[in-house]
Amino acid sequence: MSDTDAAAPVAALPTVLGALQDPVRLEVVRRLANAGQPLRCALTYDGISKSTAAHHFKILREAGVTERVTIDGNVHLRLCEEALNAEFPGLLDAVLRAANADADTPE
Amino acid sequence: MSDTDAAAPVAALPTVLGALQDPVRLEVVRRLANAGQPLRCALTYDGISKSTAAHHFKILREAGVTERVTIDGNVHLRLCEEALNAEFPGLLDAVLRAANADADTPE
Repeated sequence: MSDTDAAAPVAALPTVLGALQDPVRLEVVRRLANAGQPLRCALTYDGISKSTAAHHFKILREAGVTERVTIDGNVHLRLCEEALNAEFPGLLDAVLRAANADADTPE
Repeated sequence: MSDTDAAAPVAALPTVLGALQDPVRLEVVRRLANAGQPLRCALTYDGISKSTAAHHFKILREAGVTERVTIDGNVHLRLCEEALNAEFPGLLDAVLRAANADADTPE
């Protein structure tokens, strides 16, 4: 059973870039993109509290970057890839390419 | 006669996105890209004070997005396109496409 909250429309470019410019939020987006499917919220971050994560999720959601989806009674995060690509062609791909390159670089 | 300050290396992705997420800085970058050449600082913004502009220029410069170039004794801003494209392929193009689309939309 799947039940979807209404997704926010994709925000203006500065707001979307502002949502993506935080390392925690960038990692959430990177994990969602690489998973290719909605993820349980807890799988999208490490090393921060639930309330800090909730703050970041809110910023992503309000920018129209992610939405909340309930699957089998569990809240998941879904990346709004189609909407972002329609609004800002190539932006998400370029950001993900860079974020994945960073993540692959040994510290 | 042209004299160039040492350009900062392109910063990490979150810092570059942070530099681009501000509407004033996004407009500076958009004007520089569309000009296709360095511009006198005053041509890159409207409606803000010189000191506010200087603050924004510093953030762009420290992120490696722009550099200061002195041409015939006058300070210009130059967009570090090659360095940005080498570090984050496609990112600047996607941001500029979106920013130009916004600028073309009547209010």
